[in-house]
Amino acid sequence: MFGADLIGRPISEVDTPALVIDADAMEKNIADMATYFAKAPAELRPHAKTHKSPIVALKQIEAGAIGATCAKLGEAEALQQGGVRDILIANEIIGKRKIARLVGMARHCNIAVAVDNEKNAKEISDAAVAAGSTVRVLVEVNIGMNRCGVEPGKDAIDLVKKVQKMPGLNFFGFQAYEGHLIMYGTRAEREEAVRASFDPLIETRKQAESEGLEVPVISGGGTGTYDITSQIDGVDEVQAGSYVFMDAKYNTVDGPGDKFSPAIYLWSTVVSRPSTDRVILDIGLKTATPEMGMPAFLDFDGATVDKMSEEHGIATVTSEDARQLAVGDQVRIQPGHVCTTVNLHDNYVVVRNGVVEAVWNVAGRGRSQ
Amino acid sequence: MFGADLIGRPISEVDTPALVIDADAMEKNIADMATYFAKAPAELRPHAKTHKSPIVALKQIEAGAIGATCAKLGEAEALQQGGVRDILIANEIIGKRKIARLVGMARHCNIAVAVDNEKNAKEISDAAVAAGSTVRVLVEVNIGMNRCGVEPGKDAIDLVKKVQKMPGLNFFGFQAYEGHLIMYGTRAEREEAVRASFDPLIETRKQAESEGLEVPVISGGGTGTYDITSQIDGVDEVQAGSYVFMDAKYNTVDGPGDKFSPAIYLWSTVVSRPSTDRVILDIGLKTATPEMGMPAFLDFDGATVDKMSEEHGIATVTSEDARQLAVGDQVRIQPGHVCTTVNLHDNYVVVRNGVVEAVWNVAGRGRSQ
Repeated sequence: MFGADLIGRPISEVDTPALVIDADAMEKNIADMATYFAKAPAELRPHAKTHKSPIVALKQIEAGAIGATCAKLGEAEALQQGGVRDILIANEIIGKRKIARLVGMARHCNIAVAVDNEKNAKEISDAAVAAGSTVRVLVEVNIGMNRCGVEPGKDAIDLVKKVQKMPGLNFFGFQAYEGHLIMYGTRAEREEAVRASFDPLIETRKQAESEGLEVPVISGGGTGTYDITSQIDGVDEVQAGSYVFMDAKYNTVDGPGDKFSPAIYLWSTVVSRPSTDRVILDIGLKTATPEMGMPAFLDFDGATVDKMSEEHGIATVTSEDARQLAVGDQVRIQPGHVCTTVNLHDNYVVVRNGVVEAVWNVAGRGRSQ
Repeated sequence: MFGADLIGRPISEVDTPALVIDADAMEKNIADMATYFAKAPAELRPHAKTHKSPIVALKQIEAGAIGATCAKLGEAEALQQGGVRDILIANEIIGKRKIARLVGMARHCNIAVAVDNEKNAKEISDAAVAAGSTVRVLVEVNIGMNRCGVEPGKDAIDLVKKVQKMPGLNFFGFQAYEGHLIMYGTRAEREEAVRASFDPLIETRKQAESEGLEVPVISGGGTGTYDITSQIDGVDEVQAGSYVFMDAKYNTVDGPGDKFSPAIYLWSTVVSRPSTDRVILDIGLKTATPEMGMPAFLDFDGATVDKMSEEHGIATVTSEDARQLAVGDQVRIQPGHVCTTVNLHDNYVVVRNGVVEAVWNVAGRGRSQ
């Protein structure tokens, strides 16, 4: 429902619900993270699963990032079509139809993909040879999240040895994500746990290298651990994503919440005021996701979204100013979990100084294949 | 990623994740509900928030439904553009831009909208007069869900009197949704609670009619209560939606789970088998929603999705047959909550007897404005 006719208009004329980028805040988050990584031992390869936008990915790369990370092949295609040239898919790509897309794409940009299974690696190898392309492959190692990945040590090294012998594949190192620790405990507790989770993989790397296997990179990490994981000797790339926009959940995490600012919000209208303390908003489960907690008012203390149904946010207002909210008023609401909330929207409305500057499509939205 | 080239192919050739309609099961659900309403005192006005598809809405109407219900103006537009002529928006439409769309649309189809606020009703009236259109208006009454709506009794009747005097508006009755009771208790407990929740509104209707106010309809109800609400003397329309597809949550509700069959599933691939009892699927929070509980395997006992991250479903397999699942295998997964899951997908793949028969776009997806 958004188009070029919105550009130049004040935010008050943007209809709701809308997903709005605060351009100044986003650019500051990108610059601040780039400043950090300019001095860190590891490189930044930001995860595009948060923004799903090649425009934003290219801004991150322009600021110093070495490329982009993404979760799905469809996201990689959206990034490539928007001009991103170095893309790491941090997951396994399974099945002949997707593998055909992968090796085709590898002729046109620099792609890397995770594997945790010999048969899958062999299928990618065969397809790459047939297509005349080369695919960078990372062996995914489980460092405690217990999702995908082989175990560190012998299992990992065995798979590396097999991958290294497969034509059409270029062994690129290890993919390892400490997703179970991204929001864990205090900053100090998190550091201890993250270092312990990477230890077996760092050992595995040393072991592999002692056997003469070259391991170009270990790639992992997120916004909650970027300044821990990037400092581990042996980790080369950090895949932080959420820092670009931040969300209400990260505000509760000791560390990143202080370093990056809210740069995205849901622009929402009060649609009903059934009682003094109840405000009904036009955002719900079809515009904002609840799995990490409710979205939050950015401009009112004493106002909380307690519950969402499909198209409604049910809020309680206890402060004097929040109680002034009337039907038709527009408010800024920070997503609870930014990555999945972005996935519900077709467009970003990009605003600077209260005026719409651009409308960008969420190019990777729904590209879960 | 789906197109006409998929039609005629076996389901095994459909890439994943995909949202698949079992055409036979959907048509049986539509027919069974139509059979029930052919004898019920109330009419069926199915809620399109579940399917968001004018193709499905027209099937329901062809089977006897009197029109469609929807939640948002954008959904109403998608239905109208697909040929639906009688549409009830069961929520308030706030703000001059949306009201302009509403009264414009009212020139081209038969639209009804809820109001719970005099000022909003006046704005619709003014805009309708200016546009030369007439909008049917229902006064929304709170019957215990505590979301939008005025209270039954004097508040409701006062607003009816005001609406009836406004030009361009055609007072259509009361909108009332017992959403807090849709999945409540046993069938018997639910019936008692639903009847009690409607009592004050039925009284309000009698009071209004005794004052000479014509109340054409009371419209409400859902899949969990369709055979209760449709039997209440004074309720005229039932807005059940989920019955068309069903979901894992409704399977746990005493009543509808026995009467309608699963007619939609996520077609998913096993992407990793890291241990004997762990299966990783390619569906996650960006393809399936968790707020009413995890999605469920349709074809395996002893296999449960325990957790979802953004692009992964982490399942535990305990039975012998489920443990045979290997990387690359495809499985059918029933959504936990169908309405919000559908909203994540651009297309339906429609399958009959294991062969793709059609690809339909989810026309109302993301139309939350």
